[in-house]
Amino acid sequence: MIKSHSWYNGQIKPSEDITISPNDLGLLRGYGLFDYFRTYNGKPFQWDWYWQRFKGSADLLNIPFDMKQEEVSEILAELYKLSSAEEVAYRFLLTGGDAPDSSTMTKPNFLIRSEKLSEMPSESFEKGISIISHEYSRDMPTLKSTDYKRVMSLQPAIKAAGAVDVLYHTGGLLSEMSRSNIFLVKDNQIKTPATGVLRGITRRTVMELAKSDFEVSETDLFLKDIFEADEVFTTSTNKKVLPVTKIDNVSIGNGAAGAASKEMLARFDEFIVNW
Amino acid sequence: MIKSHSWYNGQIKPSEDITISPNDLGLLRGYGLFDYFRTYNGKPFQWDWYWQRFKGSADLLNIPFDMKQEEVSEILAELYKLSSAEEVAYRFLLTGGDAPDSSTMTKPNFLIRSEKLSEMPSESFEKGISIISHEYSRDMPTLKSTDYKRVMSLQPAIKAAGAVDVLYHTGGLLSEMSRSNIFLVKDNQIKTPATGVLRGITRRTVMELAKSDFEVSETDLFLKDIFEADEVFTTSTNKKVLPVTKIDNVSIGNGAAGAASKEMLARFDEFIVNW
Repeated sequence: MIKSHSWYNGQIKPSEDITISPNDLGLLRGYGLFDYFRTYNGKPFQWDWYWQRFKGSADLLNIPFDMKQEEVSEILAELYKLSSAEEVAYRFLLTGGDAPDSSTMTKPNFLIRSEKLSEMPSESFEKGISIISHEYSRDMPTLKSTDYKRVMSLQPAIKAAGAVDVLYHTGGLLSEMSRSNIFLVKDNQIKTPATGVLRGITRRTVMELAKSDFEVSETDLFLKDIFEADEVFTTSTNKKVLPVTKIDNVSIGNGAAGAASKEMLARFDEFIVNW
Repeated sequence: MIKSHSWYNGQIKPSEDITISPNDLGLLRGYGLFDYFRTYNGKPFQWDWYWQRFKGSADLLNIPFDMKQEEVSEILAELYKLSSAEEVAYRFLLTGGDAPDSSTMTKPNFLIRSEKLSEMPSESFEKGISIISHEYSRDMPTLKSTDYKRVMSLQPAIKAAGAVDVLYHTGGLLSEMSRSNIFLVKDNQIKTPATGVLRGITRRTVMELAKSDFEVSETDLFLKDIFEADEVFTTSTNKKVLPVTKIDNVSIGNGAAGAASKEMLARFDEFIVNW
């Protein structure tokens, strides 16, 4: 059992002892960023990439954030030690801080928390998952803001469709799933949407790992392309490379996890063993 | 000095004693609604209208909310009594509740807080305010979600322009200001955008109060219409009827608070005296 701890504005405590003010602008005004990553072999996976993206997102959202990477690295190591776990997930949460007047930014609040890993059932990797499509694009999609109200409000629709997640598009132009990136495989090509997406770190890792044997591209992709694809898979920290076998109740390819998806999952699993 | 109190999930405490879990889905996932209204003569202004809108918003966002209006009316009265103030503002905050797994909704969290009134300086009503335009539309604009990250991130741009707020449009089609509705006056007509807006309670009140002597309509309005308008004003709980005299550094009409705006403010002020 992981002993989850949190660093909050300079202090480390057991996570259950952390409380937030109701004046936090992340809560009152949705003015917040987060990130989520994990260790492999006790080391934060792709930490440099996560750090760069997070700093850039804070800049784009105009939340002042002046911590140094080395300082945060030390906090990650300390939280890992306190966790007594082999592997942990980390969550960053940066908000506009407490605003007694409910709207004026003062000093940001920053939380770093170690968490129990959330892993997909192995069956999902073997059989693939079923998703639905929905017309929507996240506001400021290149940043990992805390704005997930759309997918939260779609939970009953997702459940009713017997699906587990949602794929967003704008007039048919694909962008991303609610918390992961999407890839299509056709012949020996692996393609993923170029715009309107979070530049996922697992996405980037998978593209690197694929390019020795596949033609990899970031390009415009449409809903209709899905139904002509051989395979579809999605990537994220906890989904790694996860086959998507059904969209809007229509089977993709032959309806089973495809060879390229399995190959990329194998490469990813090999890569993390040696991380 | 108002003694602010909060009702939170069934208990009333001084507001400074309320704490929120870092697992609140309003914070982690932007899955939250709020509302903000005030008393006149100690009575919640247009309480029935606020209540109906709030219940409807919870339904649209799929947050289960089963409190009865009478029950909440009693809480409002109790918070008012405890405030020792002549008039108070109230804030509702309803979120998807605490999610130890960071994503699954459990039981909603509901906060009702009495607050010190936030009032505009009287100079603003006399001289009008300056705003900038910005291309953006709120996700699910008919509901008062907590999603204000866009205007929060625009604060430096608003300040740099010497403005105080922002007017949203989509390809020139006007919707609303960041926290208030917009009206244009041309000849004896008062017009306000029909779609993509929060159905403001002050907006609705002002439309009712105007129709005896003005031609009032909800319709499509464009940025160019602003620069041909005689007057522009904005409405909200704390702005009441507030003239907007400059947009993107261009003066509207003759650059001063207009006659229709003043007339509507006077009608509103008379209406609240007798509330």
